[in-house]
Amino acid sequence: MEAFHLAARIAINGYGTIGKRVADAVAGQDDMQLAGVVKTKPNFEAKLALRKGYPLYASNKEALAKFDKAGVKAQGTLDDLLKVSDLVVDCTPEESGYRPTYEKAGVKAIWQGGEEHSLTNLSFNAAANYAECSGAQFVRVPSCNTTGLIRTLYPLDAHLGVQRVLAVLVRRATDPGDSKKGPLNAIEPELEMPSHHGPDVQSVLPKLNIHTIAVKVPTTIMHLHAVTVDLKQPADVEKVLDLWRKVRRVMLVSGADGVKSTAQIMEMARDLSRNRADLYEIAVWQDGVHVVDGTRLYYFQAVHQESDVVPENIDAIRALLELENDARKSMEKTDRSLGIGV
Amino acid sequence: MEAFHLAARIAINGYGTIGKRVADAVAGQDDMQLAGVVKTKPNFEAKLALRKGYPLYASNKEALAKFDKAGVKAQGTLDDLLKVSDLVVDCTPEESGYRPTYEKAGVKAIWQGGEEHSLTNLSFNAAANYAECSGAQFVRVPSCNTTGLIRTLYPLDAHLGVQRVLAVLVRRATDPGDSKKGPLNAIEPELEMPSHHGPDVQSVLPKLNIHTIAVKVPTTIMHLHAVTVDLKQPADVEKVLDLWRKVRRVMLVSGADGVKSTAQIMEMARDLSRNRADLYEIAVWQDGVHVVDGTRLYYFQAVHQESDVVPENIDAIRALLELENDARKSMEKTDRSLGIGV
Amino acid sequence: MEAFHLAARIAINGYGTIGKRVADAVAGQDDMQLAGVVKTKPNFEAKLALRKGYPLYASNKEALAKFDKAGVKAQGTLDDLLKVSDLVVDCTPEESGYRPTYEKAGVKAIWQGGEEHSLTNLSFNAAANYAECSGAQFVRVPSCNTTGLIRTLYPLDAHLGVQRVLAVLVRRATDPGDSKKGPLNAIEPELEMPSHHGPDVQSVLPKLNIHTIAVKVPTTIMHLHAVTVDLKQPADVEKVLDLWRKVRRVMLVSGADGVKSTAQIMEMARDLSRNRADLYEIAVWQDGVHVVDGTRLYYFQAVHQESDVVPENIDAIRALLELENDARKSMEKTDRSLGIGV
Amino acid sequence: MEAFHLAARIAINGYGTIGKRVADAVAGQDDMQLAGVVKTKPNFEAKLALRKGYPLYASNKEALAKFDKAGVKAQGTLDDLLKVSDLVVDCTPEESGYRPTYEKAGVKAIWQGGEEHSLTNLSFNAAANYAECSGAQFVRVPSCNTTGLIRTLYPLDAHLGVQRVLAVLVRRATDPGDSKKGPLNAIEPELEMPSHHGPDVQSVLPKLNIHTIAVKVPTTIMHLHAVTVDLKQPADVEKVLDLWRKVRRVMLVSGADGVKSTAQIMEMARDLSRNRADLYEIAVWQDGVHVVDGTRLYYFQAVHQESDVVPENIDAIRALLELENDARKSMEKTDRSLGIGV
Repeated sequence: MEAFHLAARIAINGYGTIGKRVADAVAGQDDMQLAGVVKTKPNFEAKLALRKGYPLYASNKEALAKFDKAGVKAQGTLDDLLKVSDLVVDCTPEESGYRPTYEKAGVKAIWQGGEEHSLTNLSFNAAANYAECSGAQFVRVPSCNTTGLIRTLYPLDAHLGVQRVLAVLVRRATDPGDSKKGPLNAIEPELEMPSHHGPDVQSVLPKLNIHTIAVKVPTTIMHLHAVTVDLKQPADVEKVLDLWRKVRRVMLVSGADGVKSTAQIMEMARDLSRNRADLYEIAVWQDGVHVVDGTRLYYFQAVHQESDVVPENIDAIRALLELENDARKSMEKTDRSLGIGV
Repeated sequence: MEAFHLAARIAINGYGTIGKRVADAVAGQDDMQLAGVVKTKPNFEAKLALRKGYPLYASNKEALAKFDKAGVKAQGTLDDLLKVSDLVVDCTPEESGYRPTYEKAGVKAIWQGGEEHSLTNLSFNAAANYAECSGAQFVRVPSCNTTGLIRTLYPLDAHLGVQRVLAVLVRRATDPGDSKKGPLNAIEPELEMPSHHGPDVQSVLPKLNIHTIAVKVPTTIMHLHAVTVDLKQPADVEKVLDLWRKVRRVMLVSGADGVKSTAQIMEMARDLSRNRADLYEIAVWQDGVHVVDGTRLYYFQAVHQESDVVPENIDAIRALLELENDARKSMEKTDRSLGIGV
Repeated sequence: MEAFHLAARIAINGYGTIGKRVADAVAGQDDMQLAGVVKTKPNFEAKLALRKGYPLYASNKEALAKFDKAGVKAQGTLDDLLKVSDLVVDCTPEESGYRPTYEKAGVKAIWQGGEEHSLTNLSFNAAANYAECSGAQFVRVPSCNTTGLIRTLYPLDAHLGVQRVLAVLVRRATDPGDSKKGPLNAIEPELEMPSHHGPDVQSVLPKLNIHTIAVKVPTTIMHLHAVTVDLKQPADVEKVLDLWRKVRRVMLVSGADGVKSTAQIMEMARDLSRNRADLYEIAVWQDGVHVVDGTRLYYFQAVHQESDVVPENIDAIRALLELENDARKSMEKTDRSLGIGV
Repeated sequence: MEAFHLAARIAINGYGTIGKRVADAVAGQDDMQLAGVVKTKPNFEAKLALRKGYPLYASNKEALAKFDKAGVKAQGTLDDLLKVSDLVVDCTPEESGYRPTYEKAGVKAIWQGGEEHSLTNLSFNAAANYAECSGAQFVRVPSCNTTGLIRTLYPLDAHLGVQRVLAVLVRRATDPGDSKKGPLNAIEPELEMPSHHGPDVQSVLPKLNIHTIAVKVPTTIMHLHAVTVDLKQPADVEKVLDLWRKVRRVMLVSGADGVKSTAQIMEMARDLSRNRADLYEIAVWQDGVHVVDGTRLYYFQAVHQESDVVPENIDAIRALLELENDARKSMEKTDRSLGIGV
């Protein structure tokens, strides 16, 4: 690491669905700068990174040779980039095994939800445990689905107490930019139970009693969760909605307003004119929230799998590098930069 | 009604997804005969009915004129058909309002799940309440989803006791023969809760404590249910599977055998070489059945929405016309004719 | 119309897929201003228009009452808006019949491709006939597919001569924001032939000998065209690519770069960080261009149906209001504002 | 080979989509018998083969061990089966490389369209070149798409003369029983041109001037072809339809009858109550056939990719084993057994 610089220098290793979004978000902060992005292949995404003016690096010397051959200008390799970085956000495919590399380079690192909690023994959610992660060397941001569950369950647990949760995750099959995976015209249950999402929520909220069930369906745009919560304290629908109105990164939508499905949620996201038409918030249908017998709460939420973890990554960078010690202030700063309202 | 005939004369009013299947099934019984099928339009399905040798009727005189014009030979109208029928299976779109017509004609009638329970105040499931419906004038066979839930829940309740059920229904968007409806690439929650399926199950099993949640997804072939049951008596997986092995019209499938999704279930159905490649049974993934804490049971089941009610309709005909008083014998006879094994 | 104002005042009637995009584009020009947008229903899209600060109008008094009831602040009705507008871009559903209204209000108007050419007897494409439309009262911008065909065929015809074109249009079924229409899991041919697209191309290029065939498939994101052209002059692939490189609003993409399908094209569009992640250009696969026997040219192009006509609408505004008489200058100005490169 | 047996003994190597259909078809003939089917894995399809009473073999000793372990009763290995077979229909994945095995075993063999023509230097279509293949040792039945094109083009060429063909193939992405492959919500062009289908048609009709273009779309049930033919002799639509009415394995369907898309074609196939709800015929929309300028013919046809080659395989067996020397007689016999009308 170099001695003097004004803003924290952030490397992005892996420039796919998550990596390129975190890169854009880092580039939009005033207390950090994008040191560079690392790719394995000189494909169209690499070319677009250059078009955006991002310093581009190849993952290793073999990759660098491919970049040269393809006429795509890379500045060096991952190792070169780490030398001029304070922290790396690892967005490589799961189990890519870069931890020793980062340790050797002496950089802090953030991994994504594809990795096991055990890689870092510390999983991050800005609202739930920012302080706990402050100054840490390594942290993991859990997956899109897990982050989505924590967003709505944490305030319920904090204010009303959660006895038990059953969440059925109706998962998108693959991301919109993919054209290989299916299933086409089929529904695929995850037969192992609970699905990994329940334990993953517990990596941040260890005391939450949650069971998750997952099913894969032929859509690309969003996951949908049907959540059932047994509350400790009775509450009515309005009280629950109020809790969510007060927290960040949860957005109430309404079937009565014409938002009938995930199609209209993402249409709304596009109408917001944000970068890449992303939706960082978890969308909850306010007319789909029901309370039965005082303490049994049902609700539907939708998760934009490509982007909901992006603000968490930015906050995690601040926490690890201690750029900001107040979680609320970090979240506000992040959200303002991304266009997320309250 | 005429005085003498060897087999019960069955009319099918409405020759769409369900109607044409019930027609084929009736034609395959030895104690009933297909008096005729009624269609509103002389389209390709009408022509295929003729190709199968089914007496074809138009729904009314206006429709009959259309049939004549199209050169599709109809024998008369619904009214003509009812004169030579003992019972009509109504497979018309919901709320078509034919009850007065059937009353006037003095025929017994069976409706499908699109109608409200209140139309007949009697809803039918062969395993659950055959005897109760015996000799009735009018009965309703609940929808595919409801029938599917009753098939697996009834034996659980009868043998282990059911405290409470939560069923999340991941519904196919439309039938395979349709090319108009979506959604394409979206997930659509049913915001009203509980979905109508829970009360509908109670039309047959009035004491069952069940809550249902429904979500629509872009597939045509099957519904999938993620079911959570709190049992009164503790049981292990094997005990639960044994209960289902002993009842009719439930088929255990296995992810380990390569049946990973509804795609392979319907592939299996095609491999069985049954009529129309239908699957009358409810398919339960045996490696997706889990019991937690002794009494909480989780399972996945898949429902072929086009055909699971077909055997129920045949049994309902026998019950209403008192062709057979023993539910088991009727079910065995029906299943043998349709190729359903035990 | 009022007497003095600095920028041309543009009304948008109909704030759906096209209307909201044209509104955003108008708001981004320095020689025109968004006078207001007109909606029929106070749904989520209306609320997002307000969030963007767009003056919102109801289509008529009945609609206005609905807006009031829903607490969505509208400034008045379409008639009120037309009084303070110089030109209206009509993005209402086809055959909405507003021409007399616009005539009475004395405003110029631009319609979209859902309307017949006969409504205006003048159809617009910036590259092909900007001058011809200059100063006109009424003009029509042809549909997304037609505009897409003109974009690539016009330069071929101008430079090499086109003997005959056969274009097979593999059409997306419905737009991404829709969750009602199908077909799911089916392919639907347009049995009437030629499809309307051929004659529609001729509304701008009357001498072009073109036959079009259309097929609808279960996707929402883009149309794809397989185009076969018999050229008058022989040319090789490189010559053809060069022609397209020199014109605006055509983008060459490459399968070798990882752009294998429409999924990656729209992924690329998102990576460009443009408004709504739109792609205004027609994408042509450069490694899918082939010339056989010197004069028979084959190519594939993809059309983002929601946005390719947006720059044409902006140019059409300039042409009608004579804000700019040079087509090239208008196109450059429009493209710069939308982030379209050359 | 054994010396005496009444019917030709047919082995099926590979019991997937095509293999299991050919097996069923062989089992339904009176001049051949199903000696056995060979599978690599003891999955649900293997179990269903046993349920149908088909002698089951493992592909080799390792596979046999897996069958034993899974408790699925196999009679031996492929080598064992070949000893008691006269001919093997190879339905293994392409380039499985069994030709030396068959040569060593001294059996005749038929491959499917996944293989190159060069494997056998003889490709088969019953209507086009049955006699030419009579008595051959090895033959290949071209792919579903190629067979579909030959079915409709051969009679056109024979009776009217074909100057040139351009066929755009809108291909299903994967088969219905698959739940792995996509693309979801995208269209994927085959950038290499011509697609392999054109040369493949020429493997049977060497003089036909044909160019093919292929595009993959998110559907599982059928391929659709948009075909353009320049005829040598002028003809009107009725003359063309008459040609197709007279040949086998082409079925005319009608949009006016409600057959708007491939969804209704397969619905019709199910209504026919054939085995597996297959459609062996190529479906041509009679109201989608158009002739322009006397000699330019346009038409749409749909191909059930899983089954259209099944009757060709049966005829190929008869040709190779010289069970029947008259192509027409073989086709009639095959069609009668499969329920294909004229």
